[in-house]
Amino acid sequence: MMNSIRGKGFKKMEKASEALSKLKAYVSFKPEIEEVSLEEAYGRILAEDIISKIDVPNFDKSAMDGYAVIAEDTYEASIFNPILLKIIGKNPIGEEPKVYLNHGEAVEVSTGSPLPKNANAVILLEWTKKVSEDLIEVYHSVHPWENVTRIGDDLRKGEVVLKKGVKLLPQDIGVLKVLGLEKIKVFKKPKVALISTGDELVESIKDLKPFKVIDVNKPILTGMIIESGGEPLDLGLAKDDFNEIKMKIKEGLEKADMIVLTGGTSVGEKDLVPEAINSLGFPGVISHGIAIRPGGATCLGVLNGKPVFGLSGYPVAAIIGFKLFVKPLIQIFLGSSQDLMVKLRVKAARRIPSPPGVKSFVRVIIKKFGKNYLAEPISTSGSGILSSIVKANGIIEIPEESEGIEEGEEVEAYLFRPIEGEET
Amino acid sequence: MMNSIRGKGFKKMEKASEALSKLKAYVSFKPEIEEVSLEEAYGRILAEDIISKIDVPNFDKSAMDGYAVIAEDTYEASIFNPILLKIIGKNPIGEEPKVYLNHGEAVEVSTGSPLPKNANAVILLEWTKKVSEDLIEVYHSVHPWENVTRIGDDLRKGEVVLKKGVKLLPQDIGVLKVLGLEKIKVFKKPKVALISTGDELVESIKDLKPFKVIDVNKPILTGMIIESGGEPLDLGLAKDDFNEIKMKIKEGLEKADMIVLTGGTSVGEKDLVPEAINSLGFPGVISHGIAIRPGGATCLGVLNGKPVFGLSGYPVAAIIGFKLFVKPLIQIFLGSSQDLMVKLRVKAARRIPSPPGVKSFVRVIIKKFGKNYLAEPISTSGSGILSSIVKANGIIEIPEESEGIEEGEEVEAYLFRPIEGEET
Repeated sequence: MMNSIRGKGFKKMEKASEALSKLKAYVSFKPEIEEVSLEEAYGRILAEDIISKIDVPNFDKSAMDGYAVIAEDTYEASIFNPILLKIIGKNPIGEEPKVYLNHGEAVEVSTGSPLPKNANAVILLEWTKKVSEDLIEVYHSVHPWENVTRIGDDLRKGEVVLKKGVKLLPQDIGVLKVLGLEKIKVFKKPKVALISTGDELVESIKDLKPFKVIDVNKPILTGMIIESGGEPLDLGLAKDDFNEIKMKIKEGLEKADMIVLTGGTSVGEKDLVPEAINSLGFPGVISHGIAIRPGGATCLGVLNGKPVFGLSGYPVAAIIGFKLFVKPLIQIFLGSSQDLMVKLRVKAARRIPSPPGVKSFVRVIIKKFGKNYLAEPISTSGSGILSSIVKANGIIEIPEESEGIEEGEEVEAYLFRPIEGEET
Repeated sequence: MMNSIRGKGFKKMEKASEALSKLKAYVSFKPEIEEVSLEEAYGRILAEDIISKIDVPNFDKSAMDGYAVIAEDTYEASIFNPILLKIIGKNPIGEEPKVYLNHGEAVEVSTGSPLPKNANAVILLEWTKKVSEDLIEVYHSVHPWENVTRIGDDLRKGEVVLKKGVKLLPQDIGVLKVLGLEKIKVFKKPKVALISTGDELVESIKDLKPFKVIDVNKPILTGMIIESGGEPLDLGLAKDDFNEIKMKIKEGLEKADMIVLTGGTSVGEKDLVPEAINSLGFPGVISHGIAIRPGGATCLGVLNGKPVFGLSGYPVAAIIGFKLFVKPLIQIFLGSSQDLMVKLRVKAARRIPSPPGVKSFVRVIIKKFGKNYLAEPISTSGSGILSSIVKANGIIEIPEESEGIEEGEEVEAYLFRPIEGEET
């Protein structure tokens, strides 16, 4: 069932940060580790330090197109005093160097060619002139190891290349491949069970009957769980029935690492989720009634060391509750709190009030005017719930100690959808 | 083969923006459309305007817990003058309202309950007191439709809910579900063929021999193609051999929408990619030698209207080339240039020089010092190529007209990895 976003009727409204700390203290899961192939590792969280077992490169190689030489042979060379070197061969890329270089000799190389034996520098093609089939004039001196990439210059054997807890980007996968790795250890994705509660809910258009409503929360939270690095597990719908909700939570405890319910958390007659959580063990509900808006009726519980989240049935409040409480717990499970958020300084297009003592989350439409970003709050009244989440491109957080934002005041906004008309 | 990042030897270095405009003018593909289920639609680009075929909600419903009433009955009610109403029943959520309300009557409702017939407002529970089994005192007046979510208040039939070109977020999928949609039209992911060229390259550790090198570029670009919304197609390695490269490009033209090669693009002896492109038709190579650093040797071609990218063999230059040229073309194919980048104002920790006339891309490590972000450039010399891409968390773009950034100067950086130690 849908429940009040106002959180009325709670004895005490707890600060969001305090509720989260309490939840973190009660849960007891440890990050689990699994081995995956590099192909499966994009975007996963590394569960081990990667220490290079090899030097990269593992042979001295030319960093330029030109000639491999003995640096000392070129010390006297200049544009006014070219020196002559004899070309004794060519060192192709990818092949073992067979030539041994003596003083007065040069070997043709390309960028990436292994250096011939006894060579210690590369002279650039443009600093030389071929004067006959096997003779070059050199117009420039090079010092030892100039234009050479030496063994281990890029990555050294024993070096920590990537640290535990890193979210693996495409470039990291490339480097892991070069290091010769085929499988790596990553943190297992936590399984997050999803249950929507409410007598009025049906799963899809096929089951729709008059006065029933298609569940909006599971499809939203499914995507958010995936984006946060978790694995959603759909446990379906539960009626507003104590036993049905209890059985669903029990199923979740058996199959998943955490359980997210929506609906049935406010203090009305049919608010059965907190009761069902409490009936299943200790400590049960640890927070109910949180000083956030929307989402005041959010309820947090712990059973068998696993977090059980009772989010609001209102989709906007469920989204806020997910970001504030579920996502941080997924991150703990993943052994990483790394997160990239697009933040922006915006000016409030009009006054945005917020009750003191409550942290408000205001959906806004951010537009660009000249060099400024203007944020227009979207009405947060009972109506416009679904329309507001498809229209908003940003969110502004108003802290507990503030009573709102004045018109024209500059604040930070989180952007989750591009700004219309802006070049990126 | 690895090629020079300096782009020497080109007659004319073209500006990156001009090269991209030219490429866009020559390519001729049209975005293709496919139908997918909502479960497959997360993160895809919408290829149609979504117009609601229904009103949401499609019945008047209570926005609060309380009693459905006829507003006019309450006009005189106040704390000093409570009025009496008779409870004639209860309207459960999700069920057809069977009760008809007459003056002087009230029906118990919860948030989400359909309104009984003839009711036009809801009085909040806390504004009433139950004085007997079927009588309440009302202490407050309500105006017509107060605390009621009316038909279409949220989404109105005929309204454009989501526009073509939007990248679908989890909340959008939820809304599409509520609208009763099961399948939607999205833009087809362009197939991007990947070919790495170079005699020295092998695919993986299994094939590694002395003086050979494991290809780093395909695993990197594979991830970048997926992130950009494309579908990678691995066409493997090509030797530094004109015919082999030509055959691979031909294969790519048959199987994919665009082709990305790495290596073999500089002006040395073995730079066969541009020649191979030109041998396959008109216009062939349209840009070769671009005023960017790294990546000056990047080569852009068009065959059968499809873009063919010759990126540098150096992974950093290949990444830059991908972001500048391949990604925008993927976005054109997807019918959307929507992109969210994490930008940040940073101070240069030391002077960063850049040649005039060239757009430089400098990898940096961004750290937080007090309230400031400090960006330390990572050496871009020949060595440290791979290590730099795993260490950097940001990139700074220095425009063509600038000769560099002074120490302490404030500039914009793109962040692609979280800042160490920073709370998110």
